[in-house]
Amino acid sequence: MTCTPYGAATPSVCSPAEPVRDLFLLRPDVIFLNHGSFGACPRPVFEAYQAWQLELERQPVEFLGSRFAELMRTARQSLAAYVGAAPEDVVFFPNTTTAMNVIARSLQLGPGDEVLTTDHEYGAVDRVWRFTCRRQGAVYVLCPLPVPVASAGDIVERLWSAVTPRTRVLSLSHVTANTALILPVTEVVRRAREAGILTVVDGAHAPGQVPLQLEALGADFYVGNCHKWMCAPKGAAFLYARKEAQPLLQPLVVSWGWEPEAEGNWTFIAQDSPLVALHEWQGTRDISAPLSVPAAIDFMRAHDWPRVQAACRELARDARRRLTELTGLEPLSPDGADWYAQMVSVPLPPCDAAQLKRRLYDDWNIEIPVFDWHGRQLIRVSIQAYNDEQDVACLIDALRNLLPGQLHGPTIPRTILAGPCDS
Amino acid sequence: MTCTPYGAATPSVCSPAEPVRDLFLLRPDVIFLNHGSFGACPRPVFEAYQAWQLELERQPVEFLGSRFAELMRTARQSLAAYVGAAPEDVVFFPNTTTAMNVIARSLQLGPGDEVLTTDHEYGAVDRVWRFTCRRQGAVYVLCPLPVPVASAGDIVERLWSAVTPRTRVLSLSHVTANTALILPVTEVVRRAREAGILTVVDGAHAPGQVPLQLEALGADFYVGNCHKWMCAPKGAAFLYARKEAQPLLQPLVVSWGWEPEAEGNWTFIAQDSPLVALHEWQGTRDISAPLSVPAAIDFMRAHDWPRVQAACRELARDARRRLTELTGLEPLSPDGADWYAQMVSVPLPPCDAAQLKRRLYDDWNIEIPVFDWHGRQLIRVSIQAYNDEQDVACLIDALRNLLPGQLHGPTIPRTILAGPCDS
Repeated sequence: MTCTPYGAATPSVCSPAEPVRDLFLLRPDVIFLNHGSFGACPRPVFEAYQAWQLELERQPVEFLGSRFAELMRTARQSLAAYVGAAPEDVVFFPNTTTAMNVIARSLQLGPGDEVLTTDHEYGAVDRVWRFTCRRQGAVYVLCPLPVPVASAGDIVERLWSAVTPRTRVLSLSHVTANTALILPVTEVVRRAREAGILTVVDGAHAPGQVPLQLEALGADFYVGNCHKWMCAPKGAAFLYARKEAQPLLQPLVVSWGWEPEAEGNWTFIAQDSPLVALHEWQGTRDISAPLSVPAAIDFMRAHDWPRVQAACRELARDARRRLTELTGLEPLSPDGADWYAQMVSVPLPPCDAAQLKRRLYDDWNIEIPVFDWHGRQLIRVSIQAYNDEQDVACLIDALRNLLPGQLHGPTIPRTILAGPCDS
Repeated sequence: MTCTPYGAATPSVCSPAEPVRDLFLLRPDVIFLNHGSFGACPRPVFEAYQAWQLELERQPVEFLGSRFAELMRTARQSLAAYVGAAPEDVVFFPNTTTAMNVIARSLQLGPGDEVLTTDHEYGAVDRVWRFTCRRQGAVYVLCPLPVPVASAGDIVERLWSAVTPRTRVLSLSHVTANTALILPVTEVVRRAREAGILTVVDGAHAPGQVPLQLEALGADFYVGNCHKWMCAPKGAAFLYARKEAQPLLQPLVVSWGWEPEAEGNWTFIAQDSPLVALHEWQGTRDISAPLSVPAAIDFMRAHDWPRVQAACRELARDARRRLTELTGLEPLSPDGADWYAQMVSVPLPPCDAAQLKRRLYDDWNIEIPVFDWHGRQLIRVSIQAYNDEQDVACLIDALRNLLPGQLHGPTIPRTILAGPCDS
């Protein structure tokens, strides 16, 4: 199996996910190993999405008026069942960044109050908390979780060593964006609840990648994207709030649902719960993305998604092993399904991350994130139903050509060498 | 020309807008006289919209990553030229409600500071200001503008009589949502600027209905929808901020654009202006609606929109005249292009607005808002390119049948009488 730069579409080779592969809309000439950034939506779900849009256009007043509450309720019920929550505890948002803003900007923090988080968090969410804490005089505390991480217990202990009597909020990722690690949220949430600390879980990468039972998890707030790993179109995400924590939330976009009144014929405010009323009607917008979530869930069900996910996890594991062999560098965590699912980040030898990323795309047609993280360079491989072994093989071949010298494994002629990372 | 309840599609009769009429996606069996609520998007623009979505899906990382800034910039330039503003002073939002939230929630009001507005404002925007004022201890002052309004000068004087030394903000609609009146924003803004009062103009219904020169207008903040009267798909709206007022704004959705840094390969933050950087990147979402704004502007240009608008205004004027003749009630304003454009609200005799609206839709297939406003009942007629004289004739016929007795004009046999409004 060989790969060439400027290669054409990689044929699907002995992939367990073969039947679904062709249903995605991604360009066939790109080796797409970056599902994590923005997801990808399969054709049947995308068609359902665009059909909703057309239906909206045919009678917008009915669609966004009298039908709105029922349409959204149906979608919400489907999502809630999928993530293990009651429908009235879940509300749709365009993305998790927006949902995190709702939470962070609702909480009334006092001067000196502390918001504790890790140093693995997503840059936008990090900004949300910094912005909020600065405004309120609260302190934003980053607890370092050095890599390689050793054990779930060690992570919990490190976090707990940073808890003080002023810790009001503990905010952490379920699956980290840069290091692609699954954090031990169950134990963290359990302990925080005992200690009376509010918990906020950023599940941007979790739904569809790791199984969720949100009510059982018991976090005060949990946000997740449906458009990343749940096969939904862009613009479908959710906020879950535990019933007791819901009164803490203020709307980010104040609209008709805040202090709703029976006003003339404006009867379209969703009445399902105060959470829904306060947050779900946010002015005129295309609600087709949330409405397509049931189609996405149906798609996963119809294609035996647990089998697809298992195959993807296995391929991600294989990619991790081969990348580690190639670089000789220690991975970020122990091996195992507790630590990663369909997304793995692997350390690279020191290099110019931006240029390596560009070379991988321009010369090898490989779309994959390579970035600096706390002074090291990481590459993050995402495996979704449309990926196969050859995608990973091409990545390994490309890196063998593009990475600095002293690499392990067999060398092959480097035809397009002299890249900026080539030392 | 007769109309029957449960009628089929109204054929297009001697309409000056005939050529464009069939390009809209609205159900042909509905007499759609409510463009004002959510707009309607013609097929070529809708197709451009869905084509953007497909392009996004084919390479999401490129689309939302390296191409994002340039794509949004192109759309913004097109919009800015259309509304008479510099591109760096305009930023896209999903709708005007969201944009009004950005403004209201950014302003630092002190206890006792006053936000002055009229009693004709949109319910959601009213809530935004009430929410904000309550939080900050500011006072929300509603200046009544009794109907029928007499003159622009009278409106300005009434507003000015409510200005006090504590008035910090003057917020008013360009075209009011319920009464469909064009307010004299030019003079109000001019005087407020002289007095050092911040001006916020809610132009939800203005762009595409009335010509805009935002830089010349000189309001500190102006929000407008493209998906109502500019033929764009749902989710396309904008906020304009005068350069000197831009530093007052804080992001509603804090994300990468707040305190942006060169972080690894995240180079997609729009660099066009601090306004754009702070507000335009709001997490993963479908940006196809703003990207379709140039197609909407092209559509209007290709179909000689000034002629279409003039024909629509004339038909709106005709509808207003006929409704006034039917009810014998005084209209809300003097006649004339200064007071209304393609949307007119007309008082009805006392009736159950919600039930009348339902009867109009269920029995006559007419989609039109009928609602209570300050103790009276109003009906709001919107005329867009797809409407024609027969739509208005059907509405008059239906109302002649459904409204309470003592109506002016010739009576026709009321075959489906005994409605709740029929006294």
